[in-house]
Amino acid sequence: MPRYKIEIEYDGTNYCGWQKQKDQISIQEIIENSLLKSFNQKVEVIASGRTDAGVHALGQIAHFDLDKNLNEFQMMMAINQNISFTQNVVITNCKVVSNEFHSRFDAKMRFYQYKIINRKAPLTLDKNRAWHVAQKLDLDKIVEASKYLLGQHDFSSFRDTECQAQSPIKTLNKIEISKIGEKITFEVSAKSFLHHMVRNIVGTLILVGKGKIAVADMKKILEAKDRKMSGPNAPACGLYFLNVEY
Amino acid sequence: MPRYKIEIEYDGTNYCGWQKQKDQISIQEIIENSLLKSFNQKVEVIASGRTDAGVHALGQIAHFDLDKNLNEFQMMMAINQNISFTQNVVITNCKVVSNEFHSRFDAKMRFYQYKIINRKAPLTLDKNRAWHVAQKLDLDKIVEASKYLLGQHDFSSFRDTECQAQSPIKTLNKIEISKIGEKITFEVSAKSFLHHMVRNIVGTLILVGKGKIAVADMKKILEAKDRKMSGPNAPACGLYFLNVEY
Repeated sequence: MPRYKIEIEYDGTNYCGWQKQKDQISIQEIIENSLLKSFNQKVEVIASGRTDAGVHALGQIAHFDLDKNLNEFQMMMAINQNISFTQNVVITNCKVVSNEFHSRFDAKMRFYQYKIINRKAPLTLDKNRAWHVAQKLDLDKIVEASKYLLGQHDFSSFRDTECQAQSPIKTLNKIEISKIGEKITFEVSAKSFLHHMVRNIVGTLILVGKGKIAVADMKKILEAKDRKMSGPNAPACGLYFLNVEY
Repeated sequence: MPRYKIEIEYDGTNYCGWQKQKDQISIQEIIENSLLKSFNQKVEVIASGRTDAGVHALGQIAHFDLDKNLNEFQMMMAINQNISFTQNVVITNCKVVSNEFHSRFDAKMRFYQYKIINRKAPLTLDKNRAWHVAQKLDLDKIVEASKYLLGQHDFSSFRDTECQAQSPIKTLNKIEISKIGEKITFEVSAKSFLHHMVRNIVGTLILVGKGKIAVADMKKILEAKDRKMSGPNAPACGLYFLNVEY
């Protein structure tokens, strides 16, 4: 039976996240319902990783098995056809892959972006697309503090209490922070992340940028391995799942 | 009486445009209503130029006179306070200017941006923020054809029938087209534009990119001085009023 690898873009604003849940609408459900409508078959779509409620994706990766004689482009169009335009979920790419391929277990690197608009005025076009931070931020301090996080560490201080990962030890391969005008962008990558890890890191770095935490305290927070030491979980709307390297 | 110059950002999706209209909601009305609420005074807010229904602005400029002893930051906050968060209109900057200043008549250069997403898949995060063009476009041809438009010309071929400008002769100072991934951006500037000029130019250039019009035909279309010769008016949702130089 052919295995299809799909690339998915979504506006996470109105969803409970990737994963199917009772009484709430998920991205996974939208795609599985479309496959059910298109092919009259119940298909499980397995993603490279869950995203939380409100988190967006430009290149979420998933796979599923379906015994249909459709080429890659036809499959992409078939799924998109049964997703309403108002649902803001689309398949942007589709490939037939080997049956060995697994979107989650084969991921070598995951890439996220976090967007902040740093200005006094409320947001219009970037509403639900970025975190609005009104207070002035010291970018140099944020960048300096972020460097303590690079490499392999026990990230317990940035781990949600509900995180199901076996180990809190992760390797942060990249954390690059740039500012263009009022827009601050964080680019991060790792083989895998703990639950809420990116948002907890951003939330803590913003406290450094506001001067509420000293740069050197970032090291102490990391070494404390205690979630209570770090800052708030940054809002979901600023987070984008960019893509996966296999 | 102090004159205030304000910079305005808006998501034009749900508005009839800048200009007040009967039975429809405009950006101008939103701001004037806010001033009425804040100061219990009827104030006319005069913009650097109208924008059409659905067109966005990152830096629309306007001015108004108001006899209040507020500093620039207080005035910005006062207006924003009486615009609902759901209305997607905000003042991003405010300056006290000379009584000689006029947002419309003093403009030396106006800057617009037009955004296209060129891909098969429908839009999610860029919906109402860009024009979705599914057919493959030849960017080199678009760039080549655009060069005929630079400089001073009679732009009647790109002028809406309802345009009220006295003369169809305008000077296009810049038309720069770039592509990053699936996103194509047009940057244009002129002292002033005819009604629908930017959108008609983009609509015509896209026909060149699709191969429906030859590159050299762009010159003929311009010289014809006839709106019937050019392409369709590109959708409003891709157009952004960027800023004004005084």
